[in-house]
Amino acid sequence: MLIVLSGPSGVGKGTVRKAIFDQPGNDFQYSISMTTRQPRPGEKDGVDYFFVSKEEFENNIQTGQMLEYAKYVDNYYGTPLKYIDETLDAGKDVFLEIEVNGAMQVRSKRPDGVFIFLTPPDLMELKQRLIHRGTDSMEVINKRIHKAFSEIEMMQNYDYAVVNDEVPNAVEKIKEIIRSERLRVTRVMPDYLEMLGDSNK
Amino acid sequence: MLIVLSGPSGVGKGTVRKAIFDQPGNDFQYSISMTTRQPRPGEKDGVDYFFVSKEEFENNIQTGQMLEYAKYVDNYYGTPLKYIDETLDAGKDVFLEIEVNGAMQVRSKRPDGVFIFLTPPDLMELKQRLIHRGTDSMEVINKRIHKAFSEIEMMQNYDYAVVNDEVPNAVEKIKEIIRSERLRVTRVMPDYLEMLGDSNK
Repeated sequence: MLIVLSGPSGVGKGTVRKAIFDQPGNDFQYSISMTTRQPRPGEKDGVDYFFVSKEEFENNIQTGQMLEYAKYVDNYYGTPLKYIDETLDAGKDVFLEIEVNGAMQVRSKRPDGVFIFLTPPDLMELKQRLIHRGTDSMEVINKRIHKAFSEIEMMQNYDYAVVNDEVPNAVEKIKEIIRSERLRVTRVMPDYLEMLGDSNK
Repeated sequence: MLIVLSGPSGVGKGTVRKAIFDQPGNDFQYSISMTTRQPRPGEKDGVDYFFVSKEEFENNIQTGQMLEYAKYVDNYYGTPLKYIDETLDAGKDVFLEIEVNGAMQVRSKRPDGVFIFLTPPDLMELKQRLIHRGTDSMEVINKRIHKAFSEIEMMQNYDYAVVNDEVPNAVEKIKEIIRSERLRVTRVMPDYLEMLGDSNK
């Protein structure tokens, strides 16, 4: 099972992901990204990122070895397929934390993944702010409404929406979603059918 | 949100449902069934069942007021629509615990419900038993395989499969499924859209 955590920039995806993997006993594997940027002090190849050259990254793109990628400023960032397929083949679930554009690339290639959208808490608070219009200028409110439309538009392409009101809350909800998704009939059915297939041998 | 717990007879649906509602703080409502059978000592109308006459029940069927129903021996059992719609309209989730035939009636009328299939633990253990064939007679094994096929066939029409290995485990999984389903984008989206609709007023 492929689990994808994404959300608008600044929502705190990285913080939530770190909090999940700081906890012991996770039975899913974090997918390490590949990048062409230089390692920062303390960053290790194969732990924080797979650090590769621009040529190697572009070669990976051309040979279809990237599940998703993007270019920021002058560097590539992306998810190599090899690591993910190896982990899934070993029977482990994979956890990706990526930008919304990347998540949509993954959705198109792996529609059976679990797509979780992390929502900024002020999207929920917007209603309160609209009710108490006096406290914000019209400009501030209109800007927020515009941002809300774009966030809700993104959200439509996901399976779940988790509000990042407090990191421990969001972490717990995400882990519950993962546990529940494992109980989906569409996911457990192949095991049962395989078992019955064995019974006919 | 309509939550339907079902499963093959004898799997322990009633025990699991009672364990769920014995816990305090559930934010969903148990749907009380309607029946034409006589109340047993201690049973209360409107608590254990809605006790009605055969005429009243058949009138409910004919006027489309039953979400599902069945006849066992000489008595009707079923789920009245009125109670469910009132609870849902009040913004509360409704929990049904019913037989598989009833669950399929509900699925056809309310496809957006959450359908949970309680699985007997020996379905999972079947594989072990098949491996150690020596311990069971062929007749016992074939009977169990036949039963397994029918259980898996039923399961296909549900969203989730929860193994009833230990009641507290099953209870926790069901509650996690309910909490996760509330985070589904298809369920939270109307709230967000309504909020944005308000913002245009």
